[in-house]
Amino acid sequence: MSPADPGAHPSADGALPPGSVIGILGGGQLGRMLCIAAAEMGLRTHVLAPEDDPPAAQTANRYTQAAYDDRGALRAFARTVDAVTIEFENVPAASLTFLDTLLPGRVRPQDSAAAVAQDRLAEKKLFVAEGLGAAPFAAVDTGADLSAAVAQTGLPAILKTRREGYDGKGQRRLGSEVDIDAAAAEDSLFPAILEGVVPFTCELSVIAARGADGSFAAFDPVQNIHQHGILHQTLAPAHVAPDVAEAAVAAAGRLMTALGYVGVMATEFFLREDGSLIVNEIAPRVHNSGHWTREACAISQFAQQIRAVAGWPLGDGRAHADAIMLNLIGSDTERWQALTADGRTSIHLYGKHRIHQGRKMGHAVRLFAKGGRPDRFDGQP
Amino acid sequence: MSPADPGAHPSADGALPPGSVIGILGGGQLGRMLCIAAAEMGLRTHVLAPEDDPPAAQTANRYTQAAYDDRGALRAFARTVDAVTIEFENVPAASLTFLDTLLPGRVRPQDSAAAVAQDRLAEKKLFVAEGLGAAPFAAVDTGADLSAAVAQTGLPAILKTRREGYDGKGQRRLGSEVDIDAAAAEDSLFPAILEGVVPFTCELSVIAARGADGSFAAFDPVQNIHQHGILHQTLAPAHVAPDVAEAAVAAAGRLMTALGYVGVMATEFFLREDGSLIVNEIAPRVHNSGHWTREACAISQFAQQIRAVAGWPLGDGRAHADAIMLNLIGSDTERWQALTADGRTSIHLYGKHRIHQGRKMGHAVRLFAKGGRPDRFDGQP
Repeated sequence: MSPADPGAHPSADGALPPGSVIGILGGGQLGRMLCIAAAEMGLRTHVLAPEDDPPAAQTANRYTQAAYDDRGALRAFARTVDAVTIEFENVPAASLTFLDTLLPGRVRPQDSAAAVAQDRLAEKKLFVAEGLGAAPFAAVDTGADLSAAVAQTGLPAILKTRREGYDGKGQRRLGSEVDIDAAAAEDSLFPAILEGVVPFTCELSVIAARGADGSFAAFDPVQNIHQHGILHQTLAPAHVAPDVAEAAVAAAGRLMTALGYVGVMATEFFLREDGSLIVNEIAPRVHNSGHWTREACAISQFAQQIRAVAGWPLGDGRAHADAIMLNLIGSDTERWQALTADGRTSIHLYGKHRIHQGRKMGHAVRLFAKGGRPDRFDGQP
Repeated sequence: MSPADPGAHPSADGALPPGSVIGILGGGQLGRMLCIAAAEMGLRTHVLAPEDDPPAAQTANRYTQAAYDDRGALRAFARTVDAVTIEFENVPAASLTFLDTLLPGRVRPQDSAAAVAQDRLAEKKLFVAEGLGAAPFAAVDTGADLSAAVAQTGLPAILKTRREGYDGKGQRRLGSEVDIDAAAAEDSLFPAILEGVVPFTCELSVIAARGADGSFAAFDPVQNIHQHGILHQTLAPAHVAPDVAEAAVAAAGRLMTALGYVGVMATEFFLREDGSLIVNEIAPRVHNSGHWTREACAISQFAQQIRAVAGWPLGDGRAHADAIMLNLIGSDTERWQALTADGRTSIHLYGKHRIHQGRKMGHAVRLFAKGGRPDRFDGQP
C-alpha cells in the first residue's frame, strides 16, 4: 500500500483511501481520461504501456514504458499500485492473472472477464448461455470449415478474427460463394468466427458499472452512428421505447453478473425492427460511446470506473442533460477551433503527436436541455 | 512557442493551438483543477510556485519550485510557456509586469488588473468609480488616522489589511471606542482600510469570464454561506429575484471591462434587504464559489479560464442542473467516504499531504434537477 493521505482511513469494506495509486494497463485516450478522473478524486495513477509518450502518460502521476507481458516490469509496477485496471482490452489475460497473484482481488476487471471479452467466440457463447439474442454464429478453425459455418449462419455473413479486432479491423464480409472460396484460401484469416448479418434499425450501447459488492449502475442506453466502421456520433439518450431501454440495461447487468465483473463495461446491441435486441459485443473497459457522461452526469464513466476499481460506492448514472458526442477522427481534429465557437460544446483533445487516417484524435460533447437533443449534430453552432 | 500538435494551426485571431503550454503561477487546488481542465482540452501546463509538491504539481505537465519574485526562474519559466495566468491572487504584480515583457499580451489577467484586486483600497475606489454600491470605507495609513476613519464609516466597522488577507485573515472588528484605542496602538495593523459594517441578507458571487476580444460570459449568480469566516457552501443558482441576478452580472461585467480584464474573475456581493447590492470584493482568478460549474455546466470555470487565457472562444455559462458545493475543510475531509455514498455527489480531493484546521482539503458537489435544489445540503444521502 502506498502511504495514504492523513485522515483518510482505509475502511472495513476495503475502499482505497485518498492518495492510493490506481494502476492502469494501456496508454491511450481512455487511460488519459481515467487518470484525470482519478486526480479529481484525490487518487494517484501509474500507467504501464508499450508506447513512447502515449496520451495517458501525460496525465498519469507515473508512467512505465514496458510490454504488457514483461513480467519483471509488471512485478515492479504491482509494488507501486494499490489496484489495477485496464484501458486497452487486449492486455493479455495471463498478465492480469499474474498481477492478481501480487494484488489478490485488486485486479478489476479480473482475468477471466477480460478473457471472455477478448475472444469473440467465448463472448457469443456467453450471450447465448445468458438467454440473450445473438446473431447466428459458428466457429471456423480453418478455411476448410468455412462452408459448414456458412450453412449455419447463412449469407451475407462477416468473418471476424477471434481476437484483437476493433473499429472494423480484421473483418471480411462474405456475400457469395466466390467470397467464401477466396476467404477459405487465406490461412491468415483463421481461426475465426463467422457471424450472420442480422438486419437492424440502429446500434445501441449500455455503459454500466458493477461494484465488488455486486452493486450495479447503468448510464442511459445511447445510440451509436458509425462511419467507415468507426464510431462517429453517440446520441444520448437513445430515442427508443422504455421497454427497449430497460431490456438493454437488464442484459448488460446479466452479462456483468455472469462474469463476476468489477468495473465499467460496455455492451453493444443491435435493435431489430420488431423491437428485439441482439447483443453484438462487450468491451471490458470504459468506452467511446460513454464519453458524453463527463459532461452530462454527476459521475462520469471514468470516475465510475475509478470508483469501482477503488472499491468506492458507484455513482447512480442519471443524466441531467441530453448530449451528442462527436468523434474527431484523423484530420477532423483540425476542426477544433470551429467546434469551440459553440459555447455549449466541450472539446477534448488527446495530446497525440501524429494524425493518422482513422485515428481518434479527440471528441466534442454538445449538451442539450433534458429531452431536447436533435437527431444529429454536425458541430456547427 | 512550444511545438504545436500537427494539424493544429495557430489562428489569425491568436488562439493558442492544442499542445500549447499554459503557465500557471500558484500551486494550490485552483491550479490543480486548471491543469486538469487544460489536459482535457489537449493543452499542457507548467506550474511555478514556492511550495514542495503542492496540489497543482501533481497534475501539471511540469513543475518549477521557485519564489514568485525569482526573476531568473520567471525568465526560464517564460521560455517554456505560451501564455501565463495566476491561481494565487497575491502573486506580486511586478512579477506579472516582468513576465509581460517576455510574453507581451499573453499574461492574463494582466498586472494592472491583479494590482487592483490585491489592494482593498484600490478595489473599493474602483467600485465607487463604476457607480456600484460599496460599504463606507476610509484609508487608514497609521493608527493616528483611525478615529477620523471611524467618523467616516461609523461603528461597527472592520479594520482590514490592504493586502494578502483571505478567508477572514487579517481582519479586526471594531465595535467600541475601546476597540479603536486598542487597534490604534498596534502598528502592525497599518496601513489598513476601515470598512463600515453593512447589514445584509445574504452573500452572492458572480463568476464571469472576459475574452481578449471583449466577449463576456457569466455563470449564474450563486449564494455563499460561510462558517468561521471560510466558505462552507455555495448554492447554485442563488434564489434571488431576476433583476438582482441581472444587476450582479452587469456589475461584474462593468468591473471587468473597466479593468480590461482577460480571464475568469469572481465578484462578491452583499444583498441588502431592500434588494440593492454592495460589491464586497473581487478575486482575479477562478474561485471556490465556482467549483460547482465543473459538474453543472458544459464549460467549467476552469475550462473557461483556460479558454480565455488561450484565446479560445468562451463557453456560455448556462447550467443544466442546480448544484450545492460543500467545502471539506480540515478534518471534514474524513467524511470523503460518507459523501461518496450518495450517487449524485461528486467528490474532489486536492492531494494535500497534511490536514490543518481551516485548510481546504477538498469539496463535494451535489447535483439537483434544474429548479430543484434545496436550501442546504449536509452531505447525507
